[in-house]
Amino acid sequence: MTTIIKNGTIVTADLTYKADLKIDAGKIIEIGPNLTGDEVLDATGCYVMPGGIDPHTHLEMPFMGTYSSDDFESGTRAALSGGTTMVVDFALPAPGQSLLEALDMWDNKTSRANCDFSFHMAITWWGEQVFNEMQTIVQDKGINSFKHFMAYKGALMVDDDEMFHSFQRCAELGALPMVHAENGDIVAQMQAKLLADGNNGPEAHAYSRPAAVEGEATNRAIIIADMAGAPLYVVHTSCEQAHEAIRRARQNGMRVYGEPLIQHLTLDESEYANPDWDHAARRVMSPPFRNKQHQDSLWAGLSAGSLQVVATDHCAFTTAQKRFGVGDFTKIPNGTGGLEDRMPMLWTHGVATGRITMNEFVAVTSTNIAKILNMYPRKGAILVGADADLVVWDPKRSKTISASAQQSAIDYNVFEGKTVTGLPRYTLTRGVVAIEEGTIKTREGHGEFVKRDAFTAVNRALSTWKDITAPRKVQRTGIPASGV
Amino acid sequence: MTTIIKNGTIVTADLTYKADLKIDAGKIIEIGPNLTGDEVLDATGCYVMPGGIDPHTHLEMPFMGTYSSDDFESGTRAALSGGTTMVVDFALPAPGQSLLEALDMWDNKTSRANCDFSFHMAITWWGEQVFNEMQTIVQDKGINSFKHFMAYKGALMVDDDEMFHSFQRCAELGALPMVHAENGDIVAQMQAKLLADGNNGPEAHAYSRPAAVEGEATNRAIIIADMAGAPLYVVHTSCEQAHEAIRRARQNGMRVYGEPLIQHLTLDESEYANPDWDHAARRVMSPPFRNKQHQDSLWAGLSAGSLQVVATDHCAFTTAQKRFGVGDFTKIPNGTGGLEDRMPMLWTHGVATGRITMNEFVAVTSTNIAKILNMYPRKGAILVGADADLVVWDPKRSKTISASAQQSAIDYNVFEGKTVTGLPRYTLTRGVVAIEEGTIKTREGHGEFVKRDAFTAVNRALSTWKDITAPRKVQRTGIPASGV
Amino acid sequence: MTTIIKNGTIVTADLTYKADLKIDAGKIIEIGPNLTGDEVLDATGCYVMPGGIDPHTHLEMPFMGTYSSDDFESGTRAALSGGTTMVVDFALPAPGQSLLEALDMWDNKTSRANCDFSFHMAITWWGEQVFNEMQTIVQDKGINSFKHFMAYKGALMVDDDEMFHSFQRCAELGALPMVHAENGDIVAQMQAKLLADGNNGPEAHAYSRPAAVEGEATNRAIIIADMAGAPLYVVHTSCEQAHEAIRRARQNGMRVYGEPLIQHLTLDESEYANPDWDHAARRVMSPPFRNKQHQDSLWAGLSAGSLQVVATDHCAFTTAQKRFGVGDFTKIPNGTGGLEDRMPMLWTHGVATGRITMNEFVAVTSTNIAKILNMYPRKGAILVGADADLVVWDPKRSKTISASAQQSAIDYNVFEGKTVTGLPRYTLTRGVVAIEEGTIKTREGHGEFVKRDAFTAVNRALSTWKDITAPRKVQRTGIPASGV
Amino acid sequence: MTTIIKNGTIVTADLTYKADLKIDAGKIIEIGPNLTGDEVLDATGCYVMPGGIDPHTHLEMPFMGTYSSDDFESGTRAALSGGTTMVVDFALPAPGQSLLEALDMWDNKTSRANCDFSFHMAITWWGEQVFNEMQTIVQDKGINSFKHFMAYKGALMVDDDEMFHSFQRCAELGALPMVHAENGDIVAQMQAKLLADGNNGPEAHAYSRPAAVEGEATNRAIIIADMAGAPLYVVHTSCEQAHEAIRRARQNGMRVYGEPLIQHLTLDESEYANPDWDHAARRVMSPPFRNKQHQDSLWAGLSAGSLQVVATDHCAFTTAQKRFGVGDFTKIPNGTGGLEDRMPMLWTHGVATGRITMNEFVAVTSTNIAKILNMYPRKGAILVGADADLVVWDPKRSKTISASAQQSAIDYNVFEGKTVTGLPRYTLTRGVVAIEEGTIKTREGHGEFVKRDAFTAVNRALSTWKDITAPRKVQRTGIPASGV
Ligand SMILES: [Zn+2]
Ligand SMILES: [Zn+2]
Ligand SMILES: [Zn+2]
Ligand SMILES: [Zn+2]
Ligand SMILES: [Zn+2]
Ligand SMILES: [Zn+2]
Ligand SMILES: [Zn+2]
Ligand SMILES: [Zn+2]
Repeated sequence: MTTIIKNGTIVTADLTYKADLKIDAGKIIEIGPNLTGDEVLDATGCYVMPGGIDPHTHLEMPFMGTYSSDDFESGTRAALSGGTTMVVDFALPAPGQSLLEALDMWDNKTSRANCDFSFHMAITWWGEQVFNEMQTIVQDKGINSFKHFMAYKGALMVDDDEMFHSFQRCAELGALPMVHAENGDIVAQMQAKLLADGNNGPEAHAYSRPAAVEGEATNRAIIIADMAGAPLYVVHTSCEQAHEAIRRARQNGMRVYGEPLIQHLTLDESEYANPDWDHAARRVMSPPFRNKQHQDSLWAGLSAGSLQVVATDHCAFTTAQKRFGVGDFTKIPNGTGGLEDRMPMLWTHGVATGRITMNEFVAVTSTNIAKILNMYPRKGAILVGADADLVVWDPKRSKTISASAQQSAIDYNVFEGKTVTGLPRYTLTRGVVAIEEGTIKTREGHGEFVKRDAFTAVNRALSTWKDITAPRKVQRTGIPASGV
Repeated sequence: MTTIIKNGTIVTADLTYKADLKIDAGKIIEIGPNLTGDEVLDATGCYVMPGGIDPHTHLEMPFMGTYSSDDFESGTRAALSGGTTMVVDFALPAPGQSLLEALDMWDNKTSRANCDFSFHMAITWWGEQVFNEMQTIVQDKGINSFKHFMAYKGALMVDDDEMFHSFQRCAELGALPMVHAENGDIVAQMQAKLLADGNNGPEAHAYSRPAAVEGEATNRAIIIADMAGAPLYVVHTSCEQAHEAIRRARQNGMRVYGEPLIQHLTLDESEYANPDWDHAARRVMSPPFRNKQHQDSLWAGLSAGSLQVVATDHCAFTTAQKRFGVGDFTKIPNGTGGLEDRMPMLWTHGVATGRITMNEFVAVTSTNIAKILNMYPRKGAILVGADADLVVWDPKRSKTISASAQQSAIDYNVFEGKTVTGLPRYTLTRGVVAIEEGTIKTREGHGEFVKRDAFTAVNRALSTWKDITAPRKVQRTGIPASGV
Repeated sequence: MTTIIKNGTIVTADLTYKADLKIDAGKIIEIGPNLTGDEVLDATGCYVMPGGIDPHTHLEMPFMGTYSSDDFESGTRAALSGGTTMVVDFALPAPGQSLLEALDMWDNKTSRANCDFSFHMAITWWGEQVFNEMQTIVQDKGINSFKHFMAYKGALMVDDDEMFHSFQRCAELGALPMVHAENGDIVAQMQAKLLADGNNGPEAHAYSRPAAVEGEATNRAIIIADMAGAPLYVVHTSCEQAHEAIRRARQNGMRVYGEPLIQHLTLDESEYANPDWDHAARRVMSPPFRNKQHQDSLWAGLSAGSLQVVATDHCAFTTAQKRFGVGDFTKIPNGTGGLEDRMPMLWTHGVATGRITMNEFVAVTSTNIAKILNMYPRKGAILVGADADLVVWDPKRSKTISASAQQSAIDYNVFEGKTVTGLPRYTLTRGVVAIEEGTIKTREGHGEFVKRDAFTAVNRALSTWKDITAPRKVQRTGIPASGV
Repeated sequence: MTTIIKNGTIVTADLTYKADLKIDAGKIIEIGPNLTGDEVLDATGCYVMPGGIDPHTHLEMPFMGTYSSDDFESGTRAALSGGTTMVVDFALPAPGQSLLEALDMWDNKTSRANCDFSFHMAITWWGEQVFNEMQTIVQDKGINSFKHFMAYKGALMVDDDEMFHSFQRCAELGALPMVHAENGDIVAQMQAKLLADGNNGPEAHAYSRPAAVEGEATNRAIIIADMAGAPLYVVHTSCEQAHEAIRRARQNGMRVYGEPLIQHLTLDESEYANPDWDHAARRVMSPPFRNKQHQDSLWAGLSAGSLQVVATDHCAFTTAQKRFGVGDFTKIPNGTGGLEDRMPMLWTHGVATGRITMNEFVAVTSTNIAKILNMYPRKGAILVGADADLVVWDPKRSKTISASAQQSAIDYNVFEGKTVTGLPRYTLTRGVVAIEEGTIKTREGHGEFVKRDAFTAVNRALSTWKDITAPRKVQRTGIPASGV
């Protein structure tokens, strides 16, 4: 059975043009005028774009004996509802645990996924086993990206030594190291100090992780990657300091990527001053929201190309879970939702205001990350042969965001009350209509794992340059050669 | 008659994949495996890429009663020989001259062009006539870019006032202002001072136009464009100072592009210290060559995306013409060749070293400028429907550059003696083979003018943002409202 | 007759220590414990500091057929009342007017001055006469600083060419060029555009002179000074863009100074949004007030040393004068008061908050400018032999600023309602008590002109470095040396 | 007995003037014209300046069972010979060792010192004992500066956690934390990698500690200091990356100081490429020498004020000791001499070239560090009451540096063969002539320990600002306040 998307304007990272699309067996099989097929989706007045890819989610993530409340079913349902057709989650081995075992555990969570997905593997400890298993992860498991936590001391955090080892291994394997960049030592000390001073409310979460601490860690990770000869992907870049470090690195020829979240682009630190504890606690995530100047920096990064990807770090905890931290902000589970709202919020605050073009919208929500993670053009493209992960975007469609109408399992929404204009008319996952004008038609278990090969062009270019510029031994005829 | 490019690897700004190409009537009509057709070009071992676009040439440019020595015939022949399939030249009205009249004059030069071409229109004076004719140039003549010279005092130079007027007009018309950015007042004074000090050799050309002077003008043009609400394209960005100004602007959300030349990427200021006067004078161009640190800055800009285009400013003067300046460096005609060498030099020093990827090579030699000048995907793309301006690039083919073997009409080559690896096996202009393994098969007069529409997505987005953030009048109930 | 300042703590740019001071004939003659003399001023609980120097005032400045309302009498009275014991004003020749004639005109205004003063000479046009008179001004008249206006098109403004000529002349004469840095062309165009759009209120004054326009001009002046081999002093640095240009220059070894005003440090752009036209118009000055981020930049500059001086640009116009601009903001006379409030406001917002130390307070209000203008240690120092221009500062004394109690001749105060803590107990001008606990004891005509020599150590060092690094002619044996 | 320095020109950080000096009992007791006394030193044609202070030496430092070869006798003799009249050395507790015990050990080394000295205390481990002893060190022992090594993993290195603890403690005690800023983890890994690759020569020392690694650590230390509320002093700032971090911090209002070494200002990385192993090994120090661009950055920092102090890190090892590292560069003892050459080299390459003024020379060699370490004006000043630590500097006196004529105990000199112009005619330590025209008249044991109080004006200002801007708890009426 073929599906035709008719009368729309195709918008990709590169192009804007009128054409119909023909889909069969989950793939785009034809692009052109006047196509016909079995099923016809009317895209009149709409933009037909690659479905969004959210490279940063934590679905059903274990936490203090419970789990983040959106699993791969509700999470991917929320994603599709907002025009996102793929998520990349994180497999998180416990310290000492086998990477392969962790991957199995995470893979087991995905059976009810409504859209395609992939994984980043976290490096949470170091040893010969990890060194060896990284190769298997890359070469057999189709995972080419490794996440490192520079914060969460005593839990996920790794130190500079471990990062250097792991980044070097990534360079050898053609993989991409990623970092959560906050100085975990300082954060831990700031937390202790704030608590000691009686600062135990959710606002103290923000006080404990100022922008400087993120900037420092970002800068450090960049230097380590450069020494190790690897590119680097910095997740949830939230502030000018981190962005500045990224720009500075890129201006020295390093291959560094930055990922602002939709939350940091549109919400600010004043949320933590809300007199309602719940309101503030629900917005507790790391890094915390920043001020308007940081937002301006992030937006400029998207149009300038110094930041490449907009993600969510979707990690949904209910109010009940958030309340674990009443009286001690360090116990508030970190994370907010966003999967359903990323694309409409970015369109409303970015495209409609002229801060970014439609093509840049596609680039930062889908195409760029598909390239970075080496799954382009299967994902992130509208080309014959590509997966029919598509969103038919109605720029006139409007709604006011509300938890009461959302797909996510949690009981609130950090964007509550914000009006967005620009929403999916249809979302298709590998050719299957999952969303139709607000009607949910998702299919549990439809989603599949997406393998990603190592050795992107960027990895290879970087390795070549590092070889050419490697230190050269000075030739000496005798040692020591001089008298006194 | 159809042409098939067979067994090659297609390399675009986005993609690298194996496929054949089918060409008919100057267009790409099919991309896929195992294509057949009338004529077959073997691309085994080769990369099939969009032909290069050089957006900065001065062919048959009038100068002191004579002309730059490469005309549209020899210039486009040189271009094709090196894999470049389109040039954009500059129509230069004399002060007081009608833009339309100037365009006619320039158009008359093109009858023997071997490949497609377009024009930028220069704004060399200001008045109501210019204001009005700009609209005709954009809307009727298909030219959406206007060049402004901030140097060449007493000749082409315009002042800040004229730039502001013209940039505002560009913003209204959806066009792109461009600048040659050097502070012409300072250059003129430095020239006078150097001559007065007896510094009359070609090296004084470089002394008279230091990087600071280019950085200043770049920064100034950027501010004027920002005030006028227009994007900006900075030609021949040669130094860190100019690049820094561009980066700073982009990091403030401005839409500014920078164009390094292949000369500045690969040759340095030590050339001017050559004891042979001719050697130095042949390398006199504006801006002059810089040092290695500036080169590093430019290369990093290409990989970081803060600089987008590699051009040549091809403006070829013979040694005899250069010698007009014996005893007075200010009389040495400014300009060097480069059309034939841009792509092999960039490949050799960029792709082969790992400083840029193959995809980035395509982006900076072709695709980016096609987008900026709004002729993508007709040019700069390998897509069905695009013009078959293509180069079949043999990464193993090698030569040592020599004036004795070049297409350009002049008697020397600034890259003389440099070995390049990576050369065209075939160059096709709208489907016609112009170059085959070093054999010239160009057709005089084959080249056509390429019209370019105004109002790119970037122009429109910028206008939207400028409207949203425009100054708002403060409402006052009475004036004056206060007593003393 | 000798005067003793007893029991105070002496605070200089370098030192904080307990000692008495003995004054005779207008000079400090002894510093030490337990001094005795004819008159004793009790400084118990006070800091004894060098009197403030305001290097940027416009007293009795001609304007549209009238004058700025504070003359050398009321202006210096206001100065002394706030602890400032010297002002440096600007002699402004009309275009075509002799510098010497202008100096005479300005000198005639000073007969009733209550404290010492000096002049900067403005360069408002260029010609052989100016070139020649500059030498007389420096060598005979004791003026070593020349002001250049990059704004006020059609009036005081000079262009790049004129600046380069003048800056070179300054370099030869060992003098210091100064600039009012705003791009006058752009400002004029912005003014016209705003008026055309109906934006005629005082807020449009701010819209017409955004920070970018100041940053541009600052950067340009810096490059011109560098090319001309002169140091540079940038008056009223109000924004991060200008400060960034200054920092960048200094980090390249250039000798550039920046002068924030107390107004820009403590007042922000929201003043222009006041619904009262008079309120806004009274705050019209150039550059206009900026936002908090710019303020933070200026404060950091003071502590980091990248900005050296806090001034006022005191140029007082009455409300009646301000109302010349009702209906057309470009006719509002530019200028605010500040002479009386500079030191208490800076102390309150700087020293009391810990943003700067007491020693830095002395440096930026007095000592630094005394050094820059080459009148240290006669002024700006507490040393035996120095002029007894002193303020006995009571850090506990407090008041709320109000026009009703001020010395200035105008009918309002831009700091109205601000409470300051830290005020003079005594102000002495050359040993004479001019202010005692709020009682005015100034003597008309007491003030004298202060001569300042050229060729500071910085001028000489810069010239040495410029000579060493000057362009060198390449030696060639024959021209042309090569065949073809 | 009184000593008169006659007919000289006094040069301080602030002033240049003709006067005689009278000295008694080790102090300056009078400054003025025509002074008389018992002994007269002729300063005709000379500059009389505060004696140099070198805040960074390692005399008789334990190393691998031996010691650095200059002890407090030969080291201070070398210092005096070059015009330096005070050194500040480092007391280095072994991990676990009492700070007080370490101080005793170091104090025992000083009995033969020829000039005054003081100590910085190193924090090489953390614990309650250290926390407590820091108070004793500051309050009883007169030491207000604490050094932290971010490199030398497994030996002196402390981690971020330890630094944060110690910096906070410094803030409480009003002391100054200092850092040796290189990322010790990365250095250790780079060393291992280089050795594994066969890169075992002294040039690999430089390869293992690139500028990026120093920049990273500098940036990190700055952030930690800012979080802890302390100022920071960065020793041996050798590169643009570290300097950039310092500038960025200062531009955010932080109180950070940087100290380039005379070696990094005047010698470059090409020294390590010398085919003579000994030549290269003798120049092994950390950080290693850098290239010319880094040198330019450091020089500009001195004139701009973003770097404040020029030191030596004098740590002298003989060629025999250096040869411990034949075959393994990591075993080459780190350190070079410099105490005797710092002032003549800085004068020759700084003052004589115009890069800095004479006053800036005094500031960076003496006055600034005296202020930073809170021993001004006892040291670093020419004022009545100050210690008569003086150098009578003959700007015409010249020599060619050679190990054969040096005071240092080692057998080579890294400045061998450099000609300097500008040398002491006399050096006086507390009024006693130690050097006279190259004749050594030092007195063993003359040197005394200089106590330094805590809580400088900068410490206090910073604490005030940190208090004012400290996080504020959000007041909430009930927790949780919202329903679900
Ligand atoms: Zn994270
Ligand atoms: Zn996350
Ligand atoms: Zn040009
Ligand atoms: Zn050109
Ligand atoms: Zn002004
Ligand atoms: Zn003024
Ligand atoms: Zn060290
Ligand atoms: Zn050391």
